[in-house]
Parts: sequence; C-alpha cells; structure tokens
Amino acid sequence: MKEIDGGVCASQGFKAGAIACGIKKNGKLDLALVASDGPAVAAGIFTTNKVQAASVTISKQHLEKGSARAIIANSGNANACVGPEGMVAAEKMAVAAAKQLGIDADSVLVASTGVIGVPLPVEKIQLGLEKNSGFLSASGGNEAACAIMTTDTFSKEVAVEFQLAGVNVRIGGMAKGSGMIHPNMATMLGFITSDVAIEQKLLHKALKRAGELSFNRITVDGDTSTNDSLFILANGKAGNKKIASINDDYETFEEALIYVCTGLAKMVARDGEGATKFIEIKVSGADSEAAAVRAGKSVATSSLVKTAIFGEDANWGRILAAVGYSGIDFDPLTTDIYLGELLVCQGGVAVSFDEIKAKKILSEKDISITIRLSDKPNYEATIWTCDLSYDYVKINGSYRS
Amino acid sequence: MKEIDGGVCASQGFKAGAIACGIKKNGKLDLALVASDGPAVAAGIFTTNKVQAASVTISKQHLEKGSARAIIANSGNANACVGPEGMVAAEKMAVAAAKQLGIDADSVLVASTGVIGVPLPVEKIQLGLEKNSGFLSASGGNEAACAIMTTDTFSKEVAVEFQLAGVNVRIGGMAKGSGMIHPNMATMLGFITSDVAIEQKLLHKALKRAGELSFNRITVDGDTSTNDSLFILANGKAGNKKIASINDDYETFEEALIYVCTGLAKMVARDGEGATKFIEIKVSGADSEAAAVRAGKSVATSSLVKTAIFGEDANWGRILAAVGYSGIDFDPLTTDIYLGELLVCQGGVAVSFDEIKAKKILSEKDISITIRLSDKPNYEATIWTCDLSYDYVKINGSYRS
Repeated sequence: MKEIDGGVCASQGFKAGAIACGIKKNGKLDLALVASDGPAVAAGIFTTNKVQAASVTISKQHLEKGSARAIIANSGNANACVGPEGMVAAEKMAVAAAKQLGIDADSVLVASTGVIGVPLPVEKIQLGLEKNSGFLSASGGNEAACAIMTTDTFSKEVAVEFQLAGVNVRIGGMAKGSGMIHPNMATMLGFITSDVAIEQKLLHKALKRAGELSFNRITVDGDTSTNDSLFILANGKAGNKKIASINDDYETFEEALIYVCTGLAKMVARDGEGATKFIEIKVSGADSEAAAVRAGKSVATSSLVKTAIFGEDANWGRILAAVGYSGIDFDPLTTDIYLGELLVCQGGVAVSFDEIKAKKILSEKDISITIRLSDKPNYEATIWTCDLSYDYVKINGSYRS
Repeated sequence: MKEIDGGVCASQGFKAGAIACGIKKNGKLDLALVASDGPAVAAGIFTTNKVQAASVTISKQHLEKGSARAIIANSGNANACVGPEGMVAAEKMAVAAAKQLGIDADSVLVASTGVIGVPLPVEKIQLGLEKNSGFLSASGGNEAACAIMTTDTFSKEVAVEFQLAGVNVRIGGMAKGSGMIHPNMATMLGFITSDVAIEQKLLHKALKRAGELSFNRITVDGDTSTNDSLFILANGKAGNKKIASINDDYETFEEALIYVCTGLAKMVARDGEGATKFIEIKVSGADSEAAAVRAGKSVATSSLVKTAIFGEDANWGRILAAVGYSGIDFDPLTTDIYLGELLVCQGGVAVSFDEIKAKKILSEKDISITIRLSDKPNYEATIWTCDLSYDYVKINGSYRS
C-alpha cells in the first residue's frame, strides 16, 4: 500500500469540484460536488445526536437502496433546526446536483456544515449550479476538500493505492472538522471514494469498522455535532474480482480504508479549533477495547489536560484524574503514565523526573501521552485530540458574528 | 428561615480559624481548622473518582463511627497520587489537629486541595500548629473559608437560622471550588456545621439529598476532582428535640441544609476559573429527574455553549445540540429554548428574535437558560455553571508554575 495524491479523485472514475455560491459571506468556495462516472455502491454512518440536520435525514433515505452516484456538500450553513423547510432545502440540493450530472436525485447524498438554526439559502446553491456547469474534473479533489472547510485551517485529504490479486485498487478521502468535534459514528463530514468492486453490505461493514477506529477516536471539544456524516462510494472501476465475502481481499481493503480514515481523522484532530498541538493518547492494559477508548476519551476531553498541554505544563495528575473519573474499572496503583518517552507517574504515584526534559517534550507540536493501566497485554486504544488554547475561546466566542 | 452571618461559626458551639504554614508559596493562609466545642455526629460524601486523595481515604475511615469533632484542611497541595506517604501525611494532619484541640485523632476529618502528585510537606503543618495555638475563635469562619481557597477569587460562606418547634437552630457552611469542578457526590471541598440535634443516619440522609441538589448540579470544566469532600458536623447545642425520624423537623432541617448547600454550590459555579458569567440552566418537561439533570449537565459542560456565552453570542443551536448528544430520550420537535425571558427556539426550530434584546440579556453577569423539553409537567432540574473564557485557559495553562 502506498499513499498517492488526488484526494477523492484518486479513485478511478471519480470527478470532483467546487464553486462559491455566496453562502459563505467572504466569497470563498462553499459548495463541493463529488461524482462517480458510473453506478456505485455506497454506505454511510451518521451522527448519534438526537438532533439531526435535514441533510442527515435525506442522505439516510437516499442510502437505503445501497447505492449512490454523487455527494453534494455546502459549508457555511448546517441546515439544522430550521423545521420542515430544511428537508425541502436538502432535497433541492440533491435535485440540483442530479440535474447537473444527469442522474436521479435519490442517487445524491447531501451534507451541510456551518451555523445551526439559520435557514439555508438553497436558491443560491440552485443558481450557482445553473450558472456553473462543467466545473467537475478528475483533478478537482483538493478544490472540493477546500469547499467544505469552515474554521478549518487546512484541507484534509488522504488517498492510497494497494493491490487485490494483482489489480491496483484506490481509496481516496476528504474530511472537514475543526469545532463541535466529538464524533459518535462519524466525523463532521468525511467523504471517501474507491474504485474497488465490493458488495454493499461488506462496504458498509468496512466503513463501520474504519469509522470506529478513526473518526470515533478523535475529539476536539467533546461536542457531538448534528451533522456528522461519513460517506463512501465504490464504483468497481478498478476491475478487481468483486469482494463478496470476508476473504483476504476484504481484509486488505478494510486495512486500507482504516488507513485513509485514520489519516483524515488525525488531520481533523490536528486542525481542531485554536489548536497549537496535536495529542496522541495511547491507553493499554485495559479490561476491554471499550474501556481503553473510554479512558482515552476522558483524558482527551479534559479541559484541564488540554490547557496544561497548551501551557506546556507536565501536570500529569490531571491525566490520572481524568482516567479516574472515566467510569472504567482499573487500579490506579498499577497505572504508569509517560509524556513522550518520559515516565512521569509510576504505580499511580509521582516519580521524580527531569522537568527540563518534560518541558522539551511538551514544547513540540506533536505530543504523545501513554497510559499503561496494567502490564497485562489485554486491550488498548489510541485517541487523538488537540490542546485547548485562547484561540478556541476566541473562535467560539463569536462564531455567528 | 433567615440568612445570618458567621459561616461555619454561625452554629452554636463551633470555632474556626486559619494560619499560613508556608504550603502556599505566596505566604497566604493555607490551613483551616473547624472544631466543635463538644461531641458531634458527622457525615460526609466524597468524590466518585477512582483516583482518590489520601485525605479522602482517611476521612472515610474516621467517619465510620458516625461522629467527628473537627475538620483540618490545607490548600496548595492535594496530597493525591503520592503513594503511601500521602496516607501518613493525612494521618499526621489529623494527629496535629487533635493535639491542638485535646481530642482523639480519629475525631478529625482531613481535606486537602491543590496540585496533584507533589508530596505534601506535612512538617510545615505540624510546625505551624505547634507555633500557633489559640487561633480558633467563634468569629473565625471567614478566615477559615479564605484559607481553603486556591484559584478562587472570593471566599464562599452561607449560614441560616430557622426554628424547630420554637427552638432556634443554625446551619453554617463554607466551600471552595474554582477548577476541576464537576462534582459527583460533593464539590471540591464543602464544610457544614450545625447545632441541630439529629441522629447520624438522618444527618447523612439529609446531606446526601442536599449534595445531590446542590454540589452535584454544578460544573465548571467537567473534570471530577480526586479530592471532593463534603462534611457536616452537628453538635446538638441548639437544644431542639433530637430528630430521630423523618418528621416535620427533619423536613425543615433538610430544606435549610439544601438552602445552605445550594447557596455554596452556586458561589462555586459563579467563581469558576476564569468565569465572567454565572449561568443557570433550567430543564423541564423531562421523563425523569435524572434525564433533566443529564440534559442540563450536557449543556453546562459544552465548551461551545460556554464560549458562546462568554462571547455574548445567542448561538442557541449549540444548546439544542448539547441536549441532543446528552443521551436522554426527548423529542427535538417539542423543545423550546429561552435565553432569559426571550424565546429563541420553538419546537426545535429557530424563531426570529430580537438580536438586540438577546445581546442585552447576554451582556448581563447572570445568564438564565430555560429548556422546555415538552409542555408536560413531568420532571425538572436546575444546573449551575459559568462561561469558558481566555482566563480559564490562562489559569490552567500554567497551574503548576
């Protein structure tokens, strides 16, 4: 498996592009379109928030038949909590994309991201698509990735190529994140393409597992969004022998998909609102994978841990305290904590460590925290997050203005 | 029932005072002592964090017999995660206090607050108590309340007087909070005295209920501390007919205790680290009290809601989203949200509201958010918190330095 360029267009038979419709006040790209040249099986996983955006509801409906040809996504407005007109607007987005592409509206998946509770000016999207045709291209992946950004500071793309029985297969993905990031089945928005030939049920299974190990293991601020959607379209253009059971090809594909999703998820964590540092939290020696995830997420969402990392302060007591209130069963007296390679807490107790070394480790952009709950092999999990800085407060103190 | 002055010394037969032992580097008061002139029944509730400070373990042991005469508490060091020497230090604190007061060491409850993982210089406390005798007085409540402050900006005291069958009874309390505040059975530290005559089991019952409705309904940063302890000593000096069953006197006492605990808890929320605003979140129309609490706490711990309030931005979508991911069962389409008296969301959908009015409401120091999940009478709960400001990040980015 190797990384390649191209984002969602890396997979054969996919085009993408973006336009500025005027939903974002600053005139930047705010509408992305991704389309497969031919039919594609599709799967999606969505936010578990009880309050769900209209785009989530519509996309779930369109996914019921297990296939889709295109994804349309706007940024600058979440199309959430606006009543029945939100459903109408989301459906209009699908219709407008379908018209442009010459396909059925129910073959279009819809996504939105931005402010909640403000009616989406869908006529701007309709007009934008009418005035701009032919903006899709096989090199438009990055443009599309840029068009779904809100407070993101960089676009997020990962693509890989690997072989299934000697046939080259590709997976390409893009995502956006930044704030309201504590995904529970998906990130804010993640779109994956592949030219693999695979049965829909297995595609969905692989997506679920990949989402579990990637987007469901990051957090920025503990707030689960109303709009989280992770889509995958697979059009079979690679020409591999269709994956129809859990065989070696399936495992290879799932591994590659996990790689792409993990890469995107880590970018989302790294680009969390106001983030100055990327934090990787490895938990091992837990009684179950779920316990390892829960402990890691408790540390990753702790405002005290996140501000300490921002301040480059080796205040490891906050890490142990966050594991302590996570609700998992563990023994503090067998718990060791490392900052980078530096042991700072052994058996739940302070060890005297070199503060200068600790300061140096914490002055880096990438911080690794290792929590060994016991020395048993047992279960482990890795969680990714970012620090909590002044800029998070600044960005979110005036998001609507 | 009327509010009176005096804090923990408001109850008859209690003395308090404080000294500076040098645990705090700035030379401020860092050791508080509260003592009953005679025997007292006692009860305590403690943090549910799996990682518990030595003071919590020792105080639980000392409380087993259901009585206590005194409370000793230091600030500047949490005496947590320091191994067996922490237990030795906590016991030494009890012994030193007992020596000063001429009572048994197991009649002393111990509490600590401050940095985790640094050995407590208990010899400073021992020396401080040896060099300073007679610093306890019937007017020392405020001094003691000041001595348990860490990043608190004001001391927290509430006292009331009420009658039981014509006899005046008093309850006095003090607390400290600020950061690592998301109590689960108690706040960081809360000490209550009363001169009521009551059986220990009923005292404990009343404390549990009062803690549930007060300290367990506040949050500053979602981090549950390792040191949370809420103590009550009741010495019977009021001379009321001893409360020995759940009768009218018990109800009156419990109501007064809830009043004192709620007053202290609200002060802790108001004085959250970096707080510029006090936020009261009322949730009604829930399926259970637990659901109302869960929804309210989800909103109260949302970094996005807290930064929006700090920025005086009426971004109510974040409030609804936080209820949405709280895990409770509710229907967004019957949910109304008010900022102060201003309806901003009706039936889960934006209503057009006067932005100038909203701005004025959010410019106040005290912000009220009302969330009606349904118009059914059902269950309700009120949660208190504060906003998330630059100063929270500043304070916690360099707590140890």
